[in-house]
Amino acid sequence: MRKPWLRADRAIRICCAGMDQTPSPPVDHQHLVLDGPLMLDCRTELEGVQIAYRTYGTLNAARSNAILICHALTGDQYVAETHPVTGKDGWWDQAVGAGKPIDTGRYFVICSNVLGGCMGSTGPRTPRHPPERDGDPAALWGTDFPPVTIRDMVRAQKRLVEQLGIARLFAVIGGSMGGMQVLQWAATYPDSVFAAVPIATAPYHSAQNIAFNEVGRQSIFADPDWQQGRYWQTGALPARGLAVARMVAHITYLSEEALTRKFGRRMRSTSLAVFNDMFEVESYLRHQGSTFVHRFDANSYLTITRACDWFDLAADYDGTLSKAFAGTRTRFCLISFSSDWLYPTAESRTVARALNGAGGNVSFVEIASDKGHDAFLLDEPDFHRTLAGFLGGCAEHAGLAA
Amino acid sequence: MRKPWLRADRAIRICCAGMDQTPSPPVDHQHLVLDGPLMLDCRTELEGVQIAYRTYGTLNAARSNAILICHALTGDQYVAETHPVTGKDGWWDQAVGAGKPIDTGRYFVICSNVLGGCMGSTGPRTPRHPPERDGDPAALWGTDFPPVTIRDMVRAQKRLVEQLGIARLFAVIGGSMGGMQVLQWAATYPDSVFAAVPIATAPYHSAQNIAFNEVGRQSIFADPDWQQGRYWQTGALPARGLAVARMVAHITYLSEEALTRKFGRRMRSTSLAVFNDMFEVESYLRHQGSTFVHRFDANSYLTITRACDWFDLAADYDGTLSKAFAGTRTRFCLISFSSDWLYPTAESRTVARALNGAGGNVSFVEIASDKGHDAFLLDEPDFHRTLAGFLGGCAEHAGLAA
Repeated sequence: MRKPWLRADRAIRICCAGMDQTPSPPVDHQHLVLDGPLMLDCRTELEGVQIAYRTYGTLNAARSNAILICHALTGDQYVAETHPVTGKDGWWDQAVGAGKPIDTGRYFVICSNVLGGCMGSTGPRTPRHPPERDGDPAALWGTDFPPVTIRDMVRAQKRLVEQLGIARLFAVIGGSMGGMQVLQWAATYPDSVFAAVPIATAPYHSAQNIAFNEVGRQSIFADPDWQQGRYWQTGALPARGLAVARMVAHITYLSEEALTRKFGRRMRSTSLAVFNDMFEVESYLRHQGSTFVHRFDANSYLTITRACDWFDLAADYDGTLSKAFAGTRTRFCLISFSSDWLYPTAESRTVARALNGAGGNVSFVEIASDKGHDAFLLDEPDFHRTLAGFLGGCAEHAGLAA
Repeated sequence: MRKPWLRADRAIRICCAGMDQTPSPPVDHQHLVLDGPLMLDCRTELEGVQIAYRTYGTLNAARSNAILICHALTGDQYVAETHPVTGKDGWWDQAVGAGKPIDTGRYFVICSNVLGGCMGSTGPRTPRHPPERDGDPAALWGTDFPPVTIRDMVRAQKRLVEQLGIARLFAVIGGSMGGMQVLQWAATYPDSVFAAVPIATAPYHSAQNIAFNEVGRQSIFADPDWQQGRYWQTGALPARGLAVARMVAHITYLSEEALTRKFGRRMRSTSLAVFNDMFEVESYLRHQGSTFVHRFDANSYLTITRACDWFDLAADYDGTLSKAFAGTRTRFCLISFSSDWLYPTAESRTVARALNGAGGNVSFVEIASDKGHDAFLLDEPDFHRTLAGFLGGCAEHAGLAA
């Protein structure tokens, strides 16, 4: 009855504890600087705001075929091309490209790194602007970066889009935190959004969403290499704390079914000791954690998770979500996934009801999938068909050439 | 439209980072020492094993009214009395006592701290036995404590019960990890268990269960005060890592409904800054984390979560769970809770099917509750009625005096 994999082996090898803390080499990101200051919800005026972005496809002469894609918490502007830091494919290569659901042969696709992000847009990792009087002229914002909201992110995107010469977007599309931005766009700039596709998202962050984010933040705070947020001064990253934050978040992105199918109780080795990674799922999570710290900034993670937690669209409209969409003429397609327990279908349904209450034009599709929240990033044919079909129909109504 | 609670305030106050790392004063726990060595699944023979336990009620002359309660991951033997470290009520005061479902006027109740635990039973926090030659004679086991399994815990309990002069238990009852022990008891010592009540449990740890435990372990490993497990030499506890581990586990103990009902999006203050706790749910989790570190040992947490992850009862019986219960005459009552997503009803159903396959005597009840996994510790009248009714019926069959 002896379990062969159980040994009183005393060797200890801890992946996270020995994690590489070296920052990645800096990368130049395509960007523009917003004309004039950006007023934030916290009443801070940010000067010299830089927004990093990428575009795909060609803007037509009427400037009417632009689609803005809003990225999720740890996404960025590298939607459909090799990522300059990781060398991996774009995060939405499955959905964006010539002949794909978001067809770059037909649409002009823009994606910008969110305000507060760490891929070239102004945020905790960019230099203070203006530099502090008598301070280090090379000092970064770090934890002094003002708190930003989803609406602040959207305000910055609106200014970017205007500076690119586009008055009205054909569509705004995004999943997860990107979906919150889509909802905010439709509420704040209804006349600038012909079609909106909020995917796997919610009109507010639930107590459970906040709780998981808080664990991630506490894990970063607990890492002494976080150094009260001033790790950029010493060059040692809070890699362990950020990796644990990523690990816990990653569990919430997958359904229990997906985890079971991918890993079950399979073990990596039959001769490991009590503190080594023994199950494949552990090895996978450690890998997710350790690769993440090389592409993401801990202070950005704090800033952006806070923005998500604060998101509560109805709160800005006397607590009545339908008021956010009063008189809207935007065409909505809400998409949820049946096994998504982070932003479950019920939360998309809440948005659908509010839109119906506002007399809005709304389609709502729940895609049957056992892949959890991550399904929106994966090869889900039903999802891609829905997306392509909805955009095609809207393009016809908008009079876009096929 | 300004959110009143959003300010670009730069003060930072981090609860976990400033956490009290002082160990609690030592407590004397009632215990006995097992006669002879205990052979573990890992083939280590533990000598001088100490098992701390508490009893309630009176053993009858026939020694036939004993109930063993098996505690959960972070529980202990203080079931129905003031806890000597925390000063709080016993963890199952709701269910155990005179006139309560587990009636101490009728039954003799035993609960022991698990092997590997930290409330007086042999584990990482107790002195090495025998001390290392030429080593520190006061050295504790720490991470050198051999890996233990749920079956090892049950073996130790069996020896305890025998040394208390009890050949056969009237019942073995436990929730969560306690329920795994109940299943293991019924499989390993079928003739010593008249009735078995596995509550809110599973016959194996799922990939998602393992993943959440792994996040907790990594969080402990990432805390430099863990000191490769030798924190007991310096007296500074890995409080931050252990607190984060507790926080993430605590989320899994509650349903989303329970979190929403308890906290929703309520805020603690309208004048807090980006890094303070802002939502009530954050404050609650931080409190859960920071109080936990004073009553629990980090190395015990590593040891016991590993034991849970390794639990896979069918694996010891050629992968066929019903073989674990072949020929059983134990009466089973399986209880699950509808909103428990950590050990969902489906996993209890798997046990019920296996017992049916083995021709066992089994009742299975899913209690409707929106309180999540924690429901088994709370005031749930339907649950308590089920428990009392099942035990009363079994007592009649066993010929116990009312």
